[in-house]
Amino acid sequence: MAAWGERLAGVRGVLLDISGVLYDGGEDGGTPIPGSVEAVARLKLSKLKVRFCTNDSQKSRRDLVGLLQRQGFDISEGEVTSPAPATSLILKERGLRPHLLIHDGVRSEFDQIDTSNPNCVVIADAGEGFSYQNMNEAFRVLMDLEKPVLISLGKGRYYKETSGLMLDVGAYMKALEYACGIEAEVVGKPSPEYFQLALKEMGVEAHEAIMIGDDIVGDIGGAQRCGMRALQVRTGKFRSQT
Amino acid sequence: MAAWGERLAGVRGVLLDISGVLYDGGEDGGTPIPGSVEAVARLKLSKLKVRFCTNDSQKSRRDLVGLLQRQGFDISEGEVTSPAPATSLILKERGLRPHLLIHDGVRSEFDQIDTSNPNCVVIADAGEGFSYQNMNEAFRVLMDLEKPVLISLGKGRYYKETSGLMLDVGAYMKALEYACGIEAEVVGKPSPEYFQLALKEMGVEAHEAIMIGDDIVGDIGGAQRCGMRALQVRTGKFRSQT
Repeated sequence: MAAWGERLAGVRGVLLDISGVLYDGGEDGGTPIPGSVEAVARLKLSKLKVRFCTNDSQKSRRDLVGLLQRQGFDISEGEVTSPAPATSLILKERGLRPHLLIHDGVRSEFDQIDTSNPNCVVIADAGEGFSYQNMNEAFRVLMDLEKPVLISLGKGRYYKETSGLMLDVGAYMKALEYACGIEAEVVGKPSPEYFQLALKEMGVEAHEAIMIGDDIVGDIGGAQRCGMRALQVRTGKFRSQT
Repeated sequence: MAAWGERLAGVRGVLLDISGVLYDGGEDGGTPIPGSVEAVARLKLSKLKVRFCTNDSQKSRRDLVGLLQRQGFDISEGEVTSPAPATSLILKERGLRPHLLIHDGVRSEFDQIDTSNPNCVVIADAGEGFSYQNMNEAFRVLMDLEKPVLISLGKGRYYKETSGLMLDVGAYMKALEYACGIEAEVVGKPSPEYFQLALKEMGVEAHEAIMIGDDIVGDIGGAQRCGMRALQVRTGKFRSQT
């Protein structure tokens, strides 16, 4: 293995995943992963640019940042790339009116979006909102469309909370894809467009950036396919065998 | 198109799907599809052997047959091949102790099965039982197993009730497959073993049998791959385009 200095040569920007890297979420708001508050503080003191690149789609950016600040993290809303605002932009650009299958915590990100007479379905990590009835409603909306459009905020398999592993939106995306015979559009890691958005927002080229995450597909594979370096932490959902 | 006589030459047995062919299910018990009660009666008067081959996994065979008898169908428990009893047999043979994610209506089929300290997960069409919490529990059981075994009673995408289309177990099977990175074993149509079981139970060879169903994959494709003839009805979930 090359020395750290060599492996990090030319790096100007660091992208940090949030869940499983900075903290493990949970019903009580979750807990910081030991050392992560200090690590972020040191990064902020360095010359490196820092951006938080999350797939969290349960919370609005404001709520997520507030929660992390209360845990001691030096983080502000403008430093976060998250899928809900990115999706909101796409919906406006394409004139899409979504049926939303999302968590109440993130609903405010879609305040400005017309949801009447839906011509697409947007799913996010709805947690308990993934009831049979809600899934069936989303399924029926898709089946009634001539050209069904399903947008999924990330496609994670699962994430880790303090209580244990939690099914993520990707599982429910697959359920709807299969039931309707369609393929979803993913807004979030590992989509290249999403990493490019984060790089653009931080003003750094792909070859100058390193992604730090706990998800081998979403964080590591996705970043590498965009020409970035990547480093997998052994916290969060990390398992030595998958 | 060949004449009917030619297409049916040598047929000795008829396999009938139930949901979408005999009746459309619903909260009120559902309603017979016009002409189907009479068609079954005529078949029973003919020299043809008749077997009902369903993927219904919400109801025990007894409840399903009772419901159909009340609608006027000439049908008895011994004439039905259904996935729950078939699964129960497999579990016993392989010494598997399932975590059951199933509808209460079919639970009696697993009365004799040891469910302590589970070493596999069995999912059936659980309907409202497909809550986030129940799905997450099944997911965690699978992730805790060294070699996760997931058995799915059918893999249908959806079926039709009187209120409209309903997500079927296949969608939830796909969700767990994706989340755990595994492949489920399917007990039910279109699994060849399942059709062969039905053929054996009716004492007819594949080339002497015709399957009648509304599902192009589960009924028609599955039967044809077993060397049977097949006929798709335009009732139930049939759509001219999928």
